Amino acid sequence: MKKLKRSARLVEMTQYLLIRPHTLIPLTTFADRYNSAKSSISEDLAIIKEVFEEEGLGELQTLAGAAGGVQYIPKVTAAGALQFIHQLCRQLEQPERILPGGYLYMSDILGQPMILNEIGKLFASVFAKRDIDIVMTVETKGIPLAYATATYLNLPVVIVRRDSKVTEGSVVSINYVSGSNKRIQTMSLARRALKEESRVLIIDDFMRVGGTIQGMMDLLQEFKATVEGVGVFVESGEVEEHLVEDYISLAKLSVVDPKSRQIKVVPGTYFKESEIRGE
Amino acid sequence: MKKLKRSARLVEMTQYLLIRPHTLIPLTTFADRYNSAKSSISEDLAIIKEVFEEEGLGELQTLAGAAGGVQYIPKVTAAGALQFIHQLCRQLEQPERILPGGYLYMSDILGQPMILNEIGKLFASVFAKRDIDIVMTVETKGIPLAYATATYLNLPVVIVRRDSKVTEGSVVSINYVSGSNKRIQTMSLARRALKEESRVLIIDDFMRVGGTIQGMMDLLQEFKATVEGVGVFVESGEVEEHLVEDYISLAKLSVVDPKSRQIKVVPGTYFKESEIRGE
Repeated sequence: MKKLKRSARLVEMTQYLLIRPHTLIPLTTFADRYNSAKSSISEDLAIIKEVFEEEGLGELQTLAGAAGGVQYIPKVTAAGALQFIHQLCRQLEQPERILPGGYLYMSDILGQPMILNEIGKLFASVFAKRDIDIVMTVETKGIPLAYATATYLNLPVVIVRRDSKVTEGSVVSINYVSGSNKRIQTMSLARRALKEESRVLIIDDFMRVGGTIQGMMDLLQEFKATVEGVGVFVESGEVEEHLVEDYISLAKLSVVDPKSRQIKVVPGTYFKESEIRGE
Repeated sequence: MKKLKRSARLVEMTQYLLIRPHTLIPLTTFADRYNSAKSSISEDLAIIKEVFEEEGLGELQTLAGAAGGVQYIPKVTAAGALQFIHQLCRQLEQPERILPGGYLYMSDILGQPMILNEIGKLFASVFAKRDIDIVMTVETKGIPLAYATATYLNLPVVIVRRDSKVTEGSVVSINYVSGSNKRIQTMSLARRALKEESRVLIIDDFMRVGGTIQGMMDLLQEFKATVEGVGVFVESGEVEEHLVEDYISLAKLSVVDPKSRQIKVVPGTYFKESEIRGE
């Protein structure tokens, strides 16, 4: 590659880092790529690091030594996260969202890539330090949330199907009780879709009692896999006791009154996490 | 905001543009943001434009005049697209992918955000000039492809459900014949999920005869919506005549022989599009 000026190099490196989160890039990669001295690359990275931190894009972590390099860790600031969630809460409180059974219509919100990317970044921030191999969700509405999170964590995604007729070779199916209607349902995962002993982050859009997430956990046992974290977009506040104890929610539906058409949504457990508050 | 040096401004503007594709940004936005003269901003944009074009990231289009500004249009180069698809074709030809019924196991590929982003960019390149309001897909495997495409086009996504028991208020359901097994199936969309007269881009993972896509088109008629484009990841080559004529596929499954365990995958109609070849 031809020798680039600092200005062009900064543009190039910025995009290169942004599309490769959680990936260690040796300084020699940049030095070779731009035909530049490592000292110049280090100076460039210092400039990028400062802007990323000021803009709340995340951290640039540099590791010294032969196996060293630089890696971009997407992080949302506590203030940025709270502001975003407050806006979302106001949107979720629009009375026309009330559906039969006390559910909320959220498909329009979950259909906006810009919002999803922000949610993905929030989950990627809070789970950044966990040792995770793969992100798991169950069809349908959790899928875009899982991909958005996985993008910022640079991890693959596996989708559990609610169907036992999946034509993907040998399949593991389990029955679970959906908390909301107490019906017995089935979820399945192709044997080849998940390596044994994987460390898994579960992401879903909504949690009431936690039956669906408990189902995913049971399914994971069949793969000798471990759950390293659970993230839900919205949790229902009407339930006193959850089947799942250790989870992170972004928002909590504290009141849904179909009669008075009143909805109250407050920030979730995310904002109790000390990791977020920088402690 | 405090006055930034050119170097910091370049990093800042690069990330700002990358996360806002297909969005017209007035130069005054940048001038105010960085407390800089418009002439400096124009010089910065010229540098960014050159790097984006050299790196095959896409175009920076500048519109002059009072209503003018700059907009980032993600574009893949023809050479970049062909190289990417050739790699994918080799991956898809792995014999262990053959599933009963002549299907291919693709969930591992569609579980990788980096690959999905590249596919999304390919679709966003070829449909960049169409006038589209929303991207539509049907659950399940098309969902991540639709979101990846929508992200680069800066458009919302709507997901058609294969279930008529959707609890999203008033729902429009239609029956369709899935081409592969000739079974009559149902697909549904909440009335409020799509505005009437929307211009829609349909994205799906696989097309054999095209029954599912034809179903989505029939459903769109119920919303007085128009189809502005159809993109499929892989099409089956064993079918002579498709229900859908005007579509763009990235790859074509030309041979799947479960006996000899032979698979042949070739680049799809994408590479016949003159828009791609820059004509």
